[in-house]
Amino acid sequence: MYSFKNDYSELAHESILELLNKYSSEQNSGYGLDSHSEKAKELIKKYFEKDVAIEFLIGGTSCNKIAISHLLRPYEAVISADTGHINVHEAGAIEATGHKIITVPSKDGKIEVCDIEKAFLSHSGEHMVVPKMVYISNSTELGTIYTKSELEKISKFCKENDLYFYIDGARLGAALTANENDLTLNDISNLCDMFYIGGTKNGALLGEALIICNEKLKKGIRNSIKLNGGMLAKGFLIGIQFEALFTDELFFTLSKKANKMAKLLTDGLKGLGIKIVYPSPTNQQFVEVDNMAINKLREKYQFEVWEKGNEKSIIRLVTSWATTPEAIKSFIADLKASL
Amino acid sequence: MYSFKNDYSELAHESILELLNKYSSEQNSGYGLDSHSEKAKELIKKYFEKDVAIEFLIGGTSCNKIAISHLLRPYEAVISADTGHINVHEAGAIEATGHKIITVPSKDGKIEVCDIEKAFLSHSGEHMVVPKMVYISNSTELGTIYTKSELEKISKFCKENDLYFYIDGARLGAALTANENDLTLNDISNLCDMFYIGGTKNGALLGEALIICNEKLKKGIRNSIKLNGGMLAKGFLIGIQFEALFTDELFFTLSKKANKMAKLLTDGLKGLGIKIVYPSPTNQQFVEVDNMAINKLREKYQFEVWEKGNEKSIIRLVTSWATTPEAIKSFIADLKASL
Amino acid sequence: MYSFKNDYSELAHESILELLNKYSSEQNSGYGLDSHSEKAKELIKKYFEKDVAIEFLIGGTSCNKIAISHLLRPYEAVISADTGHINVHEAGAIEATGHKIITVPSKDGKIEVCDIEKAFLSHSGEHMVVPKMVYISNSTELGTIYTKSELEKISKFCKENDLYFYIDGARLGAALTANENDLTLNDISNLCDMFYIGGTKNGALLGEALIICNEKLKKGIRNSIKLNGGMLAKGFLIGIQFEALFTDELFFTLSKKANKMAKLLTDGLKGLGIKIVYPSPTNQQFVEVDNMAINKLREKYQFEVWEKGNEKSIIRLVTSWATTPEAIKSFIADLKASL
Amino acid sequence: MYSFKNDYSELAHESILELLNKYSSEQNSGYGLDSHSEKAKELIKKYFEKDVAIEFLIGGTSCNKIAISHLLRPYEAVISADTGHINVHEAGAIEATGHKIITVPSKDGKIEVCDIEKAFLSHSGEHMVVPKMVYISNSTELGTIYTKSELEKISKFCKENDLYFYIDGARLGAALTANENDLTLNDISNLCDMFYIGGTKNGALLGEALIICNEKLKKGIRNSIKLNGGMLAKGFLIGIQFEALFTDELFFTLSKKANKMAKLLTDGLKGLGIKIVYPSPTNQQFVEVDNMAINKLREKYQFEVWEKGNEKSIIRLVTSWATTPEAIKSFIADLKASL
Repeated sequence: MYSFKNDYSELAHESILELLNKYSSEQNSGYGLDSHSEKAKELIKKYFEKDVAIEFLIGGTSCNKIAISHLLRPYEAVISADTGHINVHEAGAIEATGHKIITVPSKDGKIEVCDIEKAFLSHSGEHMVVPKMVYISNSTELGTIYTKSELEKISKFCKENDLYFYIDGARLGAALTANENDLTLNDISNLCDMFYIGGTKNGALLGEALIICNEKLKKGIRNSIKLNGGMLAKGFLIGIQFEALFTDELFFTLSKKANKMAKLLTDGLKGLGIKIVYPSPTNQQFVEVDNMAINKLREKYQFEVWEKGNEKSIIRLVTSWATTPEAIKSFIADLKASL
Repeated sequence: MYSFKNDYSELAHESILELLNKYSSEQNSGYGLDSHSEKAKELIKKYFEKDVAIEFLIGGTSCNKIAISHLLRPYEAVISADTGHINVHEAGAIEATGHKIITVPSKDGKIEVCDIEKAFLSHSGEHMVVPKMVYISNSTELGTIYTKSELEKISKFCKENDLYFYIDGARLGAALTANENDLTLNDISNLCDMFYIGGTKNGALLGEALIICNEKLKKGIRNSIKLNGGMLAKGFLIGIQFEALFTDELFFTLSKKANKMAKLLTDGLKGLGIKIVYPSPTNQQFVEVDNMAINKLREKYQFEVWEKGNEKSIIRLVTSWATTPEAIKSFIADLKASL
Repeated sequence: MYSFKNDYSELAHESILELLNKYSSEQNSGYGLDSHSEKAKELIKKYFEKDVAIEFLIGGTSCNKIAISHLLRPYEAVISADTGHINVHEAGAIEATGHKIITVPSKDGKIEVCDIEKAFLSHSGEHMVVPKMVYISNSTELGTIYTKSELEKISKFCKENDLYFYIDGARLGAALTANENDLTLNDISNLCDMFYIGGTKNGALLGEALIICNEKLKKGIRNSIKLNGGMLAKGFLIGIQFEALFTDELFFTLSKKANKMAKLLTDGLKGLGIKIVYPSPTNQQFVEVDNMAINKLREKYQFEVWEKGNEKSIIRLVTSWATTPEAIKSFIADLKASL
Repeated sequence: MYSFKNDYSELAHESILELLNKYSSEQNSGYGLDSHSEKAKELIKKYFEKDVAIEFLIGGTSCNKIAISHLLRPYEAVISADTGHINVHEAGAIEATGHKIITVPSKDGKIEVCDIEKAFLSHSGEHMVVPKMVYISNSTELGTIYTKSELEKISKFCKENDLYFYIDGARLGAALTANENDLTLNDISNLCDMFYIGGTKNGALLGEALIICNEKLKKGIRNSIKLNGGMLAKGFLIGIQFEALFTDELFFTLSKKANKMAKLLTDGLKGLGIKIVYPSPTNQQFVEVDNMAINKLREKYQFEVWEKGNEKSIIRLVTSWATTPEAIKSFIADLKASL
């Protein structure tokens, strides 16, 4: 069985494990106050012009929960695509902190200023929640990415309307290394108030780097992390990994590899006349396949059925830094045989 | 500098790292639904007569937050020693889930039935919170441990009064391998409703095993974990580690080592006439030292000053599976020289 | 200026004020534990075959907040029409207790089993909230009402799928006294787990009667009320009012009056060719009127503009126990003149 | 039976009921946006030099819950006397909003700067909650009152340490009209950030006036009120009552009366050699009485037994605007007879 189920099926990239092995018997301070976390922060900060604050966290839901509850007052809400991870796949983690998610319809995982504006304007007065934050993910839940111009428009709207802008970067590496991408980490830090750089889905055992771009939001962030059960005793475990990821651009190399494997996959699929559902240039591909073929493929491959249909269904295929060209080729061949 | 600051200064025991390296390129299912987590659960379940449920979590605060919010209804509260970790060192993580902590005074980190009863009886009616859970840690925040008879008394009181009994086992290994201990894992599973076996402070990179002993409390626990941001995408990272810890009794071996190092330390300290403040048979020792000597020691050692006094202060010295006899001897020698 | 803005513009019906005046200097126990509250409960209980529990609360949002947070565990969610009061007009009061509202599209304020089922089936697994309650209001936000058969279907679905069924009865009087209604209070108590009988919008100064039909949900309800700031010190203030409302069927008389005034209004409107937007047999009417006429009417009448259009807009007209036929006639005449 | 159980046993003072009767058929805007609420605010504002914001709320727990959750960020906590209402008698209402209460020991219901400072200094770092508010009540739970100098000291400490200062004024009238009092409403507005003027325990059916003194805290307060289920549809019900209370100083007249009755009571008690436990100059008196006499008194009077002893117990006797000299005299005579 080979899995295209997600990009977190393997423990970690060998460079990361090597560095962990190297420091295995070294003593370090707890809670991320160690020299490796410090060094990793310095390595990441090189990408930014402004003086951001960085905290290493344990996972995506934890990041989103901490960021949103840290920023909002009790009656404030966050605007998100209806397909957004916080709205669908976090078991109510955001509402558990007391905040409503205002959803905006999305066709491809992205949201536009006109939708945000509509949601914003439809909320007023003391009987409704106060929209105070826009949440997007890049790449999105459906693999699509935002252009610089799109983010600039959202950022402008947020600034004009006193909204925070937060970007879920669980797969930010995939977005930034996509061929169509025109954004840099520095751009992002200038456009939003907070975002995170995902490690879990890009080669790390676990760990995300929360980047706080807005000076006013830095205060108390470590208390918010602790309060949410997100402060790792051995914080250096994540520090060392981000040290590895941001040495010699490993972070970007791994994402590029994942995207390249996705391209190999979609090229093969297109050759078979398979419909690619969303215009994704990243490592998540949603494709429509005959149910009979799906059943056949399931004997040798793992993947998620995203939307079940009577004859055809949409399946999600995810590649990663660990995906091999051989696995892709074999998948395409097997699919061809089963059509 | 050598650190006696805590028992989570080194990444992980070599057996754990070896196993992680061994499985580094293997594909696994996410969220703890993998074969390693399954195997680790089987290994742990061998210690229990009853059919417990096990979930691997990321850390102690996360465990406590999840357990308590999972068990209590909104108006219910948890009784804890005033020195309890949930009361003092979790940044309000429990209150953030909406629950009050009713504190009971404690001299040595332990609480007794008479204190629990007093707290229980002083709460009645609809204007007060309803005590519904007793929280203890074993070993306690001060290194002391509970006897079987003591836990039986608390357990009996809880059952008679319809209270849940939850044990924070961040340092359960140290408790169970102390010379004075007369408890087994199986005893604990029979006496309480939920507890956790701490990995972070006993050789793992991160990870705790939450053991749900009460059948009625199993439902929805994984949703509670996800909701609290405590579900690791690469759950097998913890599964593999507990597989290592519960193979050949490594878990107990590591704790024994930590306690043995603590014994070596206290023997040395007693030889110097140093006062051991709490009767701790485990790897946390609280000792009273002249401030001048403390300042001298700080040049070469890290440790926490627990309670500052004018002439003498209480410092906390923590040993672990990684502590060396050499480090202890050198510390004793340096302390002797500085007195 | 005459107001058709809502059904809570006047203090209270004279019978209620008379009874309050009568008992003005009497001493009573606090927190609803008085003889008037007791008597009012007995009067209401006569309508039910089963042994319900009754608590008098201060308002609708408070009722909904208390009911929902009392019933749900942290990871559980409530299904509601997207137009539902809890989803739109309670400033995030439900999310503030930690629970997600799963919305179901509604055209006329009502939801059907097929919609509930779709929402129910689309939530599974530990990464999503667990639907555990269905919320409806009767009459709805748009004045429409449910038939007995409709409620039976929802109730059946809820029982089969282990969901609680809760009915917001802010305007239950209007629903039960509508000509088209075929439901009784007793029916409702047999079909749902909890509901409330609204006093505020039916002649009381303030106050709603929360009816707990499901035996298992009674425990702790008063603690939940206190916890949510909903327990009135002078609970007898509400007790006396419900004593008045449920003496000589005043509660139903007042609602009937409100509905009758609405009928007078819609008859007049239909005579003018005005479009009635929703099939409401109760005291809330949504009608489409030329913007010019709206502006003219505003000089003499208060009402809410529900949906603004370029030429025509939908306005909401609410009648109540206090509305006079004269006011209706004058409104119709003025509207006629302005068309 | 005559009740000395509390100061909310009677519906309302006749002047309040008269005004309610007067406006019984008048139409008013909802949610406190009516002319009576406006007028009442103007009447209250006359007592202040600074431009405070005023909101009328439904009860004390609701006020405290709203004020505290409105002011604090998730990781921040409130310092209170261990005897404080929010700590003991609100069923966990504050913790339900996510905030810890840091308790300070109190002998007579009051807290001093030295205690606050100790609590403040003992909390630091990201593993602990951040003290951000001081909560006191005046008069206190034990009937005692603060002097201007005492409040100035607390206020100064709060300003120096960036803490909010909030005063629970459920019985502020009793405090301000005590013979020993040297504070004015204006003083209070200058010393704290937020407080409330209690109506429920001083002659109103229900209602408290929340006074927001700190400009920065005004934003969003009405959303916080709605969110907490504390916004009354018929807000004018409270507005009219405060209009009555602040016309011709009725508010102060009623409190004076309550205190005067308490004085009559304590004079009588002292004459019998009864021990007055706390130095209370207000309408709550705690007195130590023989258990035999208590049992005898209970046949004719209601009161709370505060602290049960083997031979003697402490009982609480509360007077109010409605207490008659006859009731006091009769109580004293009956007590004398039973000793």
